[in-house]
Amino acid sequence: MGFDLREGTAVLERTPATFRALLGGMPDEWTTCDEGPDTFSPFDNVGHLIHGERADWIPRAQIILAQAGNRQFEPYDRFAQKRESAGKTLSQLLDEFAALRAASLATLRGWNLTERELALQGEHPALGTVTLRQLLATWVVHDLGHIAQTTRVMAKRYRETIGPWRAYLPIVDR
Amino acid sequence: MGFDLREGTAVLERTPATFRALLGGMPDEWTTCDEGPDTFSPFDNVGHLIHGERADWIPRAQIILAQAGNRQFEPYDRFAQKRESAGKTLSQLLDEFAALRAASLATLRGWNLTERELALQGEHPALGTVTLRQLLATWVVHDLGHIAQTTRVMAKRYRETIGPWRAYLPIVDR
Repeated sequence: MGFDLREGTAVLERTPATFRALLGGMPDEWTTCDEGPDTFSPFDNVGHLIHGERADWIPRAQIILAQAGNRQFEPYDRFAQKRESAGKTLSQLLDEFAALRAASLATLRGWNLTERELALQGEHPALGTVTLRQLLATWVVHDLGHIAQTTRVMAKRYRETIGPWRAYLPIVDR
Repeated sequence: MGFDLREGTAVLERTPATFRALLGGMPDEWTTCDEGPDTFSPFDNVGHLIHGERADWIPRAQIILAQAGNRQFEPYDRFAQKRESAGKTLSQLLDEFAALRAASLATLRGWNLTERELALQGEHPALGTVTLRQLLATWVVHDLGHIAQTTRVMAKRYRETIGPWRAYLPIVDR
């Protein structure tokens, strides 16, 4: 399956509204639950996506596009949101994510990337050589994965409550 | 984890808007992809949820609440949407789901269910005796599961495109 920018951005531009529809105004029970130590609650998922806008996707794309001597990405802090979201409400995070994502997409569109640029390479600190195309496709999959993760965390609250239906709903045991 | 109606309906009432945010106006590539024969595309997921409003959740709750001689549920057709969605656009399905869900929740709220009623039982054709509380909790988990399924199906389109990041994104191999 190839990747084109129009198609990829169709997902990226919808993610903030999807999280807002799913989580906006929700009782705290649904937004603070998690899967145990060092796992993400729905609240943490939004904070993690915010950190990605600041530290991951566009900054890494810029490293690739610059094609300077050092093309190595900064390691990514998966738990940055524990610090960065402190004291904020979910409503604030949803607004912040929407604003940052809109800015990221404006930057991305402004680049008018060509096929040649999509093939340019950078160095991931653990995965080695990657292309700009792979980075942008990963951004899309990462969004979708965090929507899935958020709904899975929520679903698990009712693992016991659904009784025998648990056999039909693998999401609560994933 | 218990189940209360206020909390459960907080999820149920958000699902139509979540699907609209995720899929409304999307290019067809994202809404018609699936995971192979007899699997659901994002379009199929919405049709499946529509069928559930008509044939599953409220009708089964009514069977339980009636406490008549025969409390056995009708078997559920997991592939009814192949027939029922034929000729419809995704936009039509999103509207239809929103309208049916709103009606379902109006019915549910109108019942003013008590703890005693939530403990009433019905007979699932395969799973045996279940309670109304279990049925309603399952409705919630089922919604969340289909949001997760929809994003998983979409993510898999880029399984190869993300290159080495596949190791970090288990959603594409689930």
